[in-house]
Amino acid sequence: MNRRMRMAEGFIAADWGTTNRRAYWIDGEGRCAGEFEDSRGALSIPSGGFPEAVAEIRNRLGDKPLLLAGMIGSNRGWIEAPYVPCPAGVDDLASALVWADEETAIVPGVCDSQRADVMRGEEVQVLGAVAGKLIPSDCLVCHPGTHTKWVEVIGGRISTFRTVMTGELFNLLKEQSVLSDLLSFPVELGDAFDAGVRHGLELDDLQAELFSVRARVLLGNAPREQAASYTSGLLVGGGVRIGLAMAPRPRVFVMGRPELTRLYAAALTRAGHQPVELDGEQCFLAGIQQIAERIA
Amino acid sequence: MNRRMRMAEGFIAADWGTTNRRAYWIDGEGRCAGEFEDSRGALSIPSGGFPEAVAEIRNRLGDKPLLLAGMIGSNRGWIEAPYVPCPAGVDDLASALVWADEETAIVPGVCDSQRADVMRGEEVQVLGAVAGKLIPSDCLVCHPGTHTKWVEVIGGRISTFRTVMTGELFNLLKEQSVLSDLLSFPVELGDAFDAGVRHGLELDDLQAELFSVRARVLLGNAPREQAASYTSGLLVGGGVRIGLAMAPRPRVFVMGRPELTRLYAAALTRAGHQPVELDGEQCFLAGIQQIAERIA
Repeated sequence: MNRRMRMAEGFIAADWGTTNRRAYWIDGEGRCAGEFEDSRGALSIPSGGFPEAVAEIRNRLGDKPLLLAGMIGSNRGWIEAPYVPCPAGVDDLASALVWADEETAIVPGVCDSQRADVMRGEEVQVLGAVAGKLIPSDCLVCHPGTHTKWVEVIGGRISTFRTVMTGELFNLLKEQSVLSDLLSFPVELGDAFDAGVRHGLELDDLQAELFSVRARVLLGNAPREQAASYTSGLLVGGGVRIGLAMAPRPRVFVMGRPELTRLYAAALTRAGHQPVELDGEQCFLAGIQQIAERIA
Repeated sequence: MNRRMRMAEGFIAADWGTTNRRAYWIDGEGRCAGEFEDSRGALSIPSGGFPEAVAEIRNRLGDKPLLLAGMIGSNRGWIEAPYVPCPAGVDDLASALVWADEETAIVPGVCDSQRADVMRGEEVQVLGAVAGKLIPSDCLVCHPGTHTKWVEVIGGRISTFRTVMTGELFNLLKEQSVLSDLLSFPVELGDAFDAGVRHGLELDDLQAELFSVRARVLLGNAPREQAASYTSGLLVGGGVRIGLAMAPRPRVFVMGRPELTRLYAAALTRAGHQPVELDGEQCFLAGIQQIAERIA
């Protein structure tokens, strides 16, 4: 039985990120018939521990062919799958799979050599959304997260993209900066978030405005419980400014976890654009099936 | 014997920051006759531990009157000394000293209510430099550090200022970000630093450019050992852009620790300005003596 025939009987797909991984059992009819998520991200696996971590997935979901996407294929992961250069479509990903063994393949990431940028994992979601007709074959996608990706899709392929470190900066500031105590409050949509977005969209003084967040509270000019929402808005607004400068389009497809897409949708609306929110998990499943179908 | 007479016989001055403190014994002739530095910054002292930490200074330098400046007077310090509003000169600081006891005074910080900004410690250096004629009575001062201060001095008083979180952002990125391994290399003046400065002076995409630093190394477009210098230049250049926008002046007096002032001097030169470097410790001693002389 060749690879194609084995995949046709169903397979396991894993979205294996830096800090978490999520695995899905896709049956022969293309339905997700089982799944789990845990915190065994690529950075948490010790050197030499990947075979066991991969075996655990099969122990939980069945002894099936396995397609692994995300940071698992990076130089901090299991086996490095070299980046596919832009423009990149599903065919390009499928033909550059790296086979760890006869039953286990790693999906490559995508690089934009001209901009000097890289992604691993988001490409499956973006190209899955195109294939599933969730987004048009020419559009701008925003994929928010630790490293938010702004992706221009042309002719159904990833044409160019840019990474903005919005989520990581917020987390760094929250964990151990002079703003830590203020950023422990919840981030909520509302006037404070909107004021941050407006500042971030218009002004290019992030390094200074971050300190002003603290100074305004110290001087009694702003309520401390709104500082987290303002700061989130500031970072998201600045990220939207950078993303829209890359590829200005009236509609923007915001793909990812709903608690993040709603923040970006609000900021894009404030910027005068029309956001369309999409669930990232659904896009991933569409994309990984596209790749599975192309395995020869 | 009143306070003025006691001070005239000499006193101890302490620059008590967040993470370190430095104390100086200034004798009756105004000479520094003894000093020490340790890591007992304001944040390292437990609640209730300040009387002991203050007593330790006298144990080491003598039982003398004590002037304390810096974060010791903040809401995370010993006794809060309310901010003096801009415009603020030496007289304003001296008349707003907060006396912990008959022999121990805390120097207030300065706030810029219009900009919503605050400083504690740098004001003594800036006003000391004016009094010591190290800087003119109308000028722009840059005080680099964890929270770099850009200060406009008018008529010998602090007129307005802005804080840029350059040092703190670099440290956060170095300690626990996706750039940590790259930022462990030393920061050096040279082509990579200069390229970062130029980007920071011109472009307003810090959140994205930080990720590009990593992507360029991954793609083999930049040597990993130069990433720290480039990133430092990027942050310093962006800070210089923000500082010069506040108060554009051809000459800029850069005051602080020499290993930092030289980075800012290079960036200011690249921006077409004339930097003048000053040693922050000398400025502090000049400033604290000005305050001591005004004690009634």
